[in-house]
Amino acid sequence: MSLRDFTLYNVIERNAQVYGNRLAFVSGEQRISHRDYARRVQRLAAGLAAIGLVKGDRVAVLAQNCQEYIDLYGAAARLGLILVPVNWRLSADEIVYVITDTTPKVIVVGAEYRPVIDGARDRFSFVEGFFTLGAAAPDFAAFDDLARAGQDSNVPDFDISDASGFVIIHTAAVAGHPRGALLSHAGLLTANLQLIGSWNLTVQDVHLGVLPLFHLAGLGLLLAVQQAGGATVVLPRFDPQAVMRAISVERASLFAEFPPMLSTLLDKAAKDGDDMSSLRHLTGLDTPETIARFESMYPSARFWATYGQSEVAGAVTLSPFRDRPGSAGQPTMLNHVGVVDDLDQGLPVGQIGEIVVRGPMVFGGYWNCESDNEFGFRNGWHHTGDMGRFDDDGYLWYCGRSPAKELIKPGGENVYPAEVEKALLDHPAIAEAVVFGVPDAQWGEAIKAVCVCRSGQTLGADELIEFVATKIARFKRPKHVVFSPELPRTAQGLIDRARIKQEFAND
Amino acid sequence: MSLRDFTLYNVIERNAQVYGNRLAFVSGEQRISHRDYARRVQRLAAGLAAIGLVKGDRVAVLAQNCQEYIDLYGAAARLGLILVPVNWRLSADEIVYVITDTTPKVIVVGAEYRPVIDGARDRFSFVEGFFTLGAAAPDFAAFDDLARAGQDSNVPDFDISDASGFVIIHTAAVAGHPRGALLSHAGLLTANLQLIGSWNLTVQDVHLGVLPLFHLAGLGLLLAVQQAGGATVVLPRFDPQAVMRAISVERASLFAEFPPMLSTLLDKAAKDGDDMSSLRHLTGLDTPETIARFESMYPSARFWATYGQSEVAGAVTLSPFRDRPGSAGQPTMLNHVGVVDDLDQGLPVGQIGEIVVRGPMVFGGYWNCESDNEFGFRNGWHHTGDMGRFDDDGYLWYCGRSPAKELIKPGGENVYPAEVEKALLDHPAIAEAVVFGVPDAQWGEAIKAVCVCRSGQTLGADELIEFVATKIARFKRPKHVVFSPELPRTAQGLIDRARIKQEFAND
Repeated sequence: MSLRDFTLYNVIERNAQVYGNRLAFVSGEQRISHRDYARRVQRLAAGLAAIGLVKGDRVAVLAQNCQEYIDLYGAAARLGLILVPVNWRLSADEIVYVITDTTPKVIVVGAEYRPVIDGARDRFSFVEGFFTLGAAAPDFAAFDDLARAGQDSNVPDFDISDASGFVIIHTAAVAGHPRGALLSHAGLLTANLQLIGSWNLTVQDVHLGVLPLFHLAGLGLLLAVQQAGGATVVLPRFDPQAVMRAISVERASLFAEFPPMLSTLLDKAAKDGDDMSSLRHLTGLDTPETIARFESMYPSARFWATYGQSEVAGAVTLSPFRDRPGSAGQPTMLNHVGVVDDLDQGLPVGQIGEIVVRGPMVFGGYWNCESDNEFGFRNGWHHTGDMGRFDDDGYLWYCGRSPAKELIKPGGENVYPAEVEKALLDHPAIAEAVVFGVPDAQWGEAIKAVCVCRSGQTLGADELIEFVATKIARFKRPKHVVFSPELPRTAQGLIDRARIKQEFAND
Repeated sequence: MSLRDFTLYNVIERNAQVYGNRLAFVSGEQRISHRDYARRVQRLAAGLAAIGLVKGDRVAVLAQNCQEYIDLYGAAARLGLILVPVNWRLSADEIVYVITDTTPKVIVVGAEYRPVIDGARDRFSFVEGFFTLGAAAPDFAAFDDLARAGQDSNVPDFDISDASGFVIIHTAAVAGHPRGALLSHAGLLTANLQLIGSWNLTVQDVHLGVLPLFHLAGLGLLLAVQQAGGATVVLPRFDPQAVMRAISVERASLFAEFPPMLSTLLDKAAKDGDDMSSLRHLTGLDTPETIARFESMYPSARFWATYGQSEVAGAVTLSPFRDRPGSAGQPTMLNHVGVVDDLDQGLPVGQIGEIVVRGPMVFGGYWNCESDNEFGFRNGWHHTGDMGRFDDDGYLWYCGRSPAKELIKPGGENVYPAEVEKALLDHPAIAEAVVFGVPDAQWGEAIKAVCVCRSGQTLGADELIEFVATKIARFKRPKHVVFSPELPRTAQGLIDRARIKQEFAND
């Protein structure tokens, strides 16, 4: 640790020091204080170190929410390991892909997922330890024995900085496979502090941990409440009875949800007279009707509108839904959120462009995707691939995925339209260019460019194609080029990619 | 600006975007919105850039609190300049020292301080521009003309990271001269977010800016409230009438104070029936009696106990005074605060040692003091020079300045006792060693060491002195060495430096 570093493990240490006797987690019958949690983490870290794990090693976990999962996050923070929480909703092939992508030294699985792992063991030669939750099984050691083994050992100190990786969260399969977003300690700590500030989180807060721990929305709230000294009630899945019990008995004050969780709970509360009055903050995605119903039943609670993604460690905009219904809220305190055109020039209020982000919450890049990262981080911005606009009061309005993010895959390679467009625009005769994919008998897909020449200039298609090939990889050069005197535009004056694709695909 | 940077200027930009019409500052008759402030900063930055200032240049300001002072902070953030706010309570010689120490390109002075600067002009050959607040004067241009000149110009973009320096605050003269603590954007932003979280600061908050802006306590609160979208009422000095008016009219919610400010205000409120009920948070230093009186008059308000220093960008511990009266509070969210022995080993609860800090709020070092910095930052900790202990619940108790920080100055050189002690302890025969300064006819001061040998070992003084000279600079070797079978200890079992100095000074 160097002078100005602070890691997620330091949070656990500080909690043991200043909130030692306060409740940290409720997992089934277990009630775990912050001091207990620090001890659990210490023991598990010792056990993981004893089997040879060192800073930077990955540990994959494929399990429903449980205390062991949370202990693993803590031990990863202590040792500088990178946790790979695997989405159990993925297909077996995709699960295998995520694991081979990140080559963990250790895999930890819930009993119900052992068959998936067993079915692909020959692909996991890099794995040195297979552990199962619960009792040991053929070819799986018992996870509990790890912490037991660590009980009396010292934990080695690795040189962990707050820029060190902490977790890899795989996101939607933009390029055919899920991509793993690497998040650092610093990014998540910044997210914590922003949420603590926005929601006034304190030791009194109780988070209902019902979203799966492989999802950043659940993990982020857990970490923020932990940093405030509060507690999380760990639930393995969304069971309305159990969730409602946790709300009313543990006086849960906040959680993140996706439809139809909230409406299901409201229905149940209306029917059974459940008490949800402890709730202060909800966030996630839901319909205006459900949000309005919730806030009218519990007027002192707030549903928060937000824009975020795993790649930015959480919410980069956040406001009470009621302040500007339909918007995604205003930029949070340490995020520079912009809306830019295809050349990364900032757009005025009201104009739609790509949402870009700069600041300490921007992730470390996709695992094993160096060229994607270089391009996605061009000009000092993280390009979210989402479209949006700002209004006069600084509220962001989400406008769907960016058409430029529709990857073209000639011969199975990944080509971003924007990268090719940039190369086309480098030619002095070209004023505007739009690129998209067209079906191709030979390559599956081919690149087509529609270009506008500068006034008085002309150019041959072949010449332009060869020019592009000198600028970027040959497989990224357009196969087809069409010249047009002008490009269709939207009412806002922006280039209308959808219409261009429609008009020129067969031209 | 790179991908993960966020600076204090980005706060100003965000405020203009999301809190544009809200009040940012009240300065005399002026009421300035966040949007207005961003414009003022933009103009002043353009003016400063136009006279040739670039990233990293220093600007000294010697003035009472006023809007121009705050504009300068904003413009410094925009251009990456480093502001040097000079304490006007210093003597003329000390003011000249601070300025020559930091070699600013520009000096901005209030009219009342022009004579101090005029009296030392021949020492300021590095200064390219002298500006005065108010009307121009002989050899001083009018500061207002700077912003006017900048009105129509573009502001150049320098490559400013959040690690860039922002302000140099000179602290107590440990080594005969004040030392300038360099604070970065990141350190102050972290301090902001912690305070926003601890105090639940919002756009509703109004800070009473009565502490001088060369003091971090005042500046820190101003920046935190600004980041939350709230306002600061700028007051040039502590005038009870004006302060009380600002509290009751502007509904001030917080400020930092030093005695006798609070007791003066409470006396006045009791006598005149003033309304201070808008106050939510006070911090600073005051007596338990005054704090108790304040909280009994305003039960919903809190006085916050804290430990901090300029070198750590604000408060590293902070708790309501009433939670543990007499303590300095618990560590704040992103600070690792430790109490260590002379070898930087952590001490158990209850034991007194030096307070050390690690985390993003640790300053960038003292300006022009490389060797001091290297030593003060040894072993990955900032050594505060203050003593303290923790109690069972993680509250820090302040126990005065560290005796080891009493510099010895043989021949005018700076020698820290701890550095010499470390060299002495490197000798295999030495078990314990304490070093202090004694008067010396030749060098003004000389170094004396009192040492305990390991059981069964003996050693000559000359041999030990030569050994030290091979480890550190020769001028740091002890002139006198005394061997003793044991060292006096305190009731807590710690080496009692004060008694050692007393007993062995003439031995």
